[in-house]
Amino acid sequence: MQALVYQGSGRMARAERPTPVVRDATDAIVRVTKTTICGTDLHILAGHVPSCEPGRVLGHEGTGVVETVGPGVTLFAPGDRVLISCITSCGRCPPCRKGMYSHCLTGGWILGNRIDGTQAEQVHVPHADTSLYRLPDGTDEEPFVMLSDILPTGFECGVLNGRVTPGGTVAIVGSGPIGLAALLTAQFYAPAEVVMIDRDAHRLEVARSLGATTAVNSGDGGTVAQVLALTAGRGVDTAIEAVGIPATFNLCEDLVAAGGTIANIGVHGSKVDLHLERLWSHNVTITTRLVDTVSLPMLMEAVHNRRVDPRPLITHRFALAEIVAAYATFRDAANTKALKVILTT
Amino acid sequence: MQALVYQGSGRMARAERPTPVVRDATDAIVRVTKTTICGTDLHILAGHVPSCEPGRVLGHEGTGVVETVGPGVTLFAPGDRVLISCITSCGRCPPCRKGMYSHCLTGGWILGNRIDGTQAEQVHVPHADTSLYRLPDGTDEEPFVMLSDILPTGFECGVLNGRVTPGGTVAIVGSGPIGLAALLTAQFYAPAEVVMIDRDAHRLEVARSLGATTAVNSGDGGTVAQVLALTAGRGVDTAIEAVGIPATFNLCEDLVAAGGTIANIGVHGSKVDLHLERLWSHNVTITTRLVDTVSLPMLMEAVHNRRVDPRPLITHRFALAEIVAAYATFRDAANTKALKVILTT
Amino acid sequence: MQALVYQGSGRMARAERPTPVVRDATDAIVRVTKTTICGTDLHILAGHVPSCEPGRVLGHEGTGVVETVGPGVTLFAPGDRVLISCITSCGRCPPCRKGMYSHCLTGGWILGNRIDGTQAEQVHVPHADTSLYRLPDGTDEEPFVMLSDILPTGFECGVLNGRVTPGGTVAIVGSGPIGLAALLTAQFYAPAEVVMIDRDAHRLEVARSLGATTAVNSGDGGTVAQVLALTAGRGVDTAIEAVGIPATFNLCEDLVAAGGTIANIGVHGSKVDLHLERLWSHNVTITTRLVDTVSLPMLMEAVHNRRVDPRPLITHRFALAEIVAAYATFRDAANTKALKVILTT
Amino acid sequence: MQALVYQGSGRMARAERPTPVVRDATDAIVRVTKTTICGTDLHILAGHVPSCEPGRVLGHEGTGVVETVGPGVTLFAPGDRVLISCITSCGRCPPCRKGMYSHCLTGGWILGNRIDGTQAEQVHVPHADTSLYRLPDGTDEEPFVMLSDILPTGFECGVLNGRVTPGGTVAIVGSGPIGLAALLTAQFYAPAEVVMIDRDAHRLEVARSLGATTAVNSGDGGTVAQVLALTAGRGVDTAIEAVGIPATFNLCEDLVAAGGTIANIGVHGSKVDLHLERLWSHNVTITTRLVDTVSLPMLMEAVHNRRVDPRPLITHRFALAEIVAAYATFRDAANTKALKVILTT
Repeated sequence: MQALVYQGSGRMARAERPTPVVRDATDAIVRVTKTTICGTDLHILAGHVPSCEPGRVLGHEGTGVVETVGPGVTLFAPGDRVLISCITSCGRCPPCRKGMYSHCLTGGWILGNRIDGTQAEQVHVPHADTSLYRLPDGTDEEPFVMLSDILPTGFECGVLNGRVTPGGTVAIVGSGPIGLAALLTAQFYAPAEVVMIDRDAHRLEVARSLGATTAVNSGDGGTVAQVLALTAGRGVDTAIEAVGIPATFNLCEDLVAAGGTIANIGVHGSKVDLHLERLWSHNVTITTRLVDTVSLPMLMEAVHNRRVDPRPLITHRFALAEIVAAYATFRDAANTKALKVILTT
Repeated sequence: MQALVYQGSGRMARAERPTPVVRDATDAIVRVTKTTICGTDLHILAGHVPSCEPGRVLGHEGTGVVETVGPGVTLFAPGDRVLISCITSCGRCPPCRKGMYSHCLTGGWILGNRIDGTQAEQVHVPHADTSLYRLPDGTDEEPFVMLSDILPTGFECGVLNGRVTPGGTVAIVGSGPIGLAALLTAQFYAPAEVVMIDRDAHRLEVARSLGATTAVNSGDGGTVAQVLALTAGRGVDTAIEAVGIPATFNLCEDLVAAGGTIANIGVHGSKVDLHLERLWSHNVTITTRLVDTVSLPMLMEAVHNRRVDPRPLITHRFALAEIVAAYATFRDAANTKALKVILTT
Repeated sequence: MQALVYQGSGRMARAERPTPVVRDATDAIVRVTKTTICGTDLHILAGHVPSCEPGRVLGHEGTGVVETVGPGVTLFAPGDRVLISCITSCGRCPPCRKGMYSHCLTGGWILGNRIDGTQAEQVHVPHADTSLYRLPDGTDEEPFVMLSDILPTGFECGVLNGRVTPGGTVAIVGSGPIGLAALLTAQFYAPAEVVMIDRDAHRLEVARSLGATTAVNSGDGGTVAQVLALTAGRGVDTAIEAVGIPATFNLCEDLVAAGGTIANIGVHGSKVDLHLERLWSHNVTITTRLVDTVSLPMLMEAVHNRRVDPRPLITHRFALAEIVAAYATFRDAANTKALKVILTT
Repeated sequence: MQALVYQGSGRMARAERPTPVVRDATDAIVRVTKTTICGTDLHILAGHVPSCEPGRVLGHEGTGVVETVGPGVTLFAPGDRVLISCITSCGRCPPCRKGMYSHCLTGGWILGNRIDGTQAEQVHVPHADTSLYRLPDGTDEEPFVMLSDILPTGFECGVLNGRVTPGGTVAIVGSGPIGLAALLTAQFYAPAEVVMIDRDAHRLEVARSLGATTAVNSGDGGTVAQVLALTAGRGVDTAIEAVGIPATFNLCEDLVAAGGTIANIGVHGSKVDLHLERLWSHNVTITTRLVDTVSLPMLMEAVHNRRVDPRPLITHRFALAEIVAAYATFRDAANTKALKVILTT
């Protein structure tokens, strides 16, 4: 089969790979129909993810059709249309039993990282019963590709961990796909304000069209003052970090109100300064989370019934054979205005 | 009246001060019967608390007898024996209405900081109805002095924020009065392990006698390895920071399990490193809190009925007139083995 | 002043009453500008509320202007435009400190019940600082009258107690003002389905226009089957009882899914059958609540910013002098299609 | 193999049955080492559980040794010593994913009910990976038999659902094995008072020895008055129903404080009266639950480390061959003083 293979820091290539086969009783082989590229894939290519070794097929998002299942798979059969979660979960270990699938003892984020992933014609999915989700009949697959990772990530790591509530005030730092996913799903809780913060005017415009009540261009300076002014000087109840660098985390520390929450989503490559000399007495909560995708059934139903629509996040479409060009488009987002790209096999 | 007055960085003195009087309708004047010294008082003396200006009477803990009340005080009358909360709370502003008394718009931690405090023969207590707590009849006052600040601080900032649960594992970094208060109150939740960590062998011995399941001397090295060994390599569910310096906060980052909580109690004077390059994916929660003393009614009842006994924290007793010597004893804890000192008027 | 006075079971009359005066330090006298009639007022007239004695001025909802305040009132001054909560709260007693204002030891639902109420030109409001809420400047008062009671009741007793969540399914039994208030505020949580159930076709039509996803006329029979069909046979996550009779509570027992919640709002006059022989193993939660109005600040802001609009609940308007006719209109809702009536002084 | 077989209402007999075999990939066959008798078994014998058909091997509690596993079982192997949960859970269906194992779509309480149970030499356990729990090495099995059902039932249905908290007041109506299990595990939360209520003086004596702060003999009359007197007239924060008849549920309604919780554990055979004409305004919560056994890992660790000791609940021991006599002893508890009996194969 055709696949995109990581070749070590800075390098990747399309390559022919053997068709995957069932190895354990709970495995499934899925023919990929749609996949996409994640910011994390760029982190891997930059050599920042040592668990991903050269030779790995990249990709942890996508939809497909079940081709084969092992004898221990009871919920899926060949021909079933499925969503592939970016998190593989056995459903049996202590973390899975607590709903922390991201720390499954034999799973977690392994697709396109520790095992071959979805940017290929087929993918081997361990623990299929608890890692695949049935697609509603007759539905368009594209919006569901946004549910493999970014919608649950924005929702679980940003909105749920950030304790967004009716009437609350929210600032989302970073208006990329993940920040926008947090914006879309924050609206499930009717917050009074959702302020989107970014340096890219186009992304802020998208944010406004998707429900942001205020958009602040942090390249213009005065971000903290603007947000404090919106909240009568108190700061926001929830500050969501959706970038992953020290400056944006520090901005969240400046924006959060006493009693509020900083929900980190960003994948950080270095430590950050935590200003406990100020925050020790501010009754704040800071959370981190690798998405568990526990909210997938709810989000799938919400997408199916149009209570949330992730389609505006899809800006470009390619054939899987054009995946190298798709990476170039995704990486050059400042010029291409790319958010998420869809790859079709 | 006699009082201990802050005279600017590094200096304090006993001095004669005018007897306080009712100014607002909700004020009470309390004759202090017992008070104590807090680590925060040493911070003030070190000049680290700019809100406390020279001339201020120090102290935010104590018991006493109500002498006078304003016309808006409905729950107390002259002669009532009371516990003075370190947190003044109006009960009416939005933070108070949410139970976040520490951020009361006209209160919070003001005694011995922004207004004159309790290390004196009398003290002026604003918002008396919601800042004083009636002592049970005929009870010894001394253990209750531990409830003005340290027991609720250990409990609310450490145990409640740290989400200690039955069967959970807890590490408390710092075995001073606050850390020991967290140890005492953590036992309300039947954790499987409470590991106390300190460099002072005597304080660790006290910790063991108060219920610590393990005591680790961090001066010996290998602290992280010892705690990981106790938890099958997972780390602890709750890491409580009860010192207030970067090294001890960093230790908590090393000790906390995926899905766990770091509950900061320490009063920090400088920023700390937050290792998000590792923790971003560990599903951890970090909390800070200035104690709200919302748990005072429960804790008072528990002390009264001996379900928790803070008396072992009291190591020395002085007359109020000896307060300068009491400060010296408290400050030289490594040699005097002081935990909390009681001052009697 | 003019007032509507309860005269014992079945009787009421407009009457001249002395202007109320400040008695306690924390009292305010408010000139009523708008008031309304509640279903509970009809219960009183029916003689079902023995705590309300003949001679009482009725009414527990309204807006007004502060005329006089006692010396212990710090947040309000004459001339302030205010919303009057149906719940009087001292902010100091143990229940108030826990946010359970409805059980305030010297308050709770007392207006128009144990003390004179708002269907008058003036009203005496005890504990003014914690029982009145400032109206936004320059705003229309009418929608805010819906916040004295029905919006917080629908929200707190129905939506919050009923744990409505994104993607959840909700059935609201009773499409009167309270049920509709629950419907409006349930939408803060983006439920997948809100099924309204009533016997009045007009009220169901209103429900549909206010966001119900399905309206079921329980007069037609087959209600349970219809709701089960909507939920793949599972029943609803949240069943809200907004009528107050045995039949409607029993319907909720039939509609609730395993793991779900029945949130009672209705004011019941008799016991109901609880079918524990079936429900003991269904992991259900049943809640009751007299509204605490803790959500008033959030709801006022939401109404002010039009995130929720209670105006469609106002169907009729009268002068206070016409209050007897207003009662007739309100009581004859089946014919007048009345939901809430506004009385203007 | 030898087994105890239900023969229709009122009848049971020891009988020879075929040795069970693996049918599905996720099955295990367990050789039973210890089992016990539950009050529910008496309900079955009384003909009150129609899902249990004649011919069924009874019993849903026990420990054993794994003999055979299907190819989909990954966590257990022949020779493993295990605890058998009374609840069978697939770990994959929506209820299991939410932690509501009791409503597993292909499991729940099925052992000794819908499929053959544990009062036999061997038992077939479906979904073995998520329905068996490994016993600590070298440990005595007897106390663990109390964890198949009664300890998690008392804890989850009574203590957790009842929201027992430090300083709270608890009344447990029924001092049989389940009520005593609630008493033992309530102490994980350091309640101020645990009042045990029963008509059997011996069981109240046991309750006192296991930590009850007060024991009330409801046969003496005045129960409500006694409990109200203990709580300054307020009633208890948590009332746990551990009998299963209307009178005891009604007693809970009389005992619960405003804002409190009634946690039902009892298996009811008929409806009860719910006095909403009084409780509608009391802000109470009523819960029901079939145990999910989600707390088993924690409880097993607590038993292993002696933080809770269920051994006092074991009053009699028999060989499996004497099971008919064991039933007689268990049933005649008023005379035999039986609580739980252990049967050894």
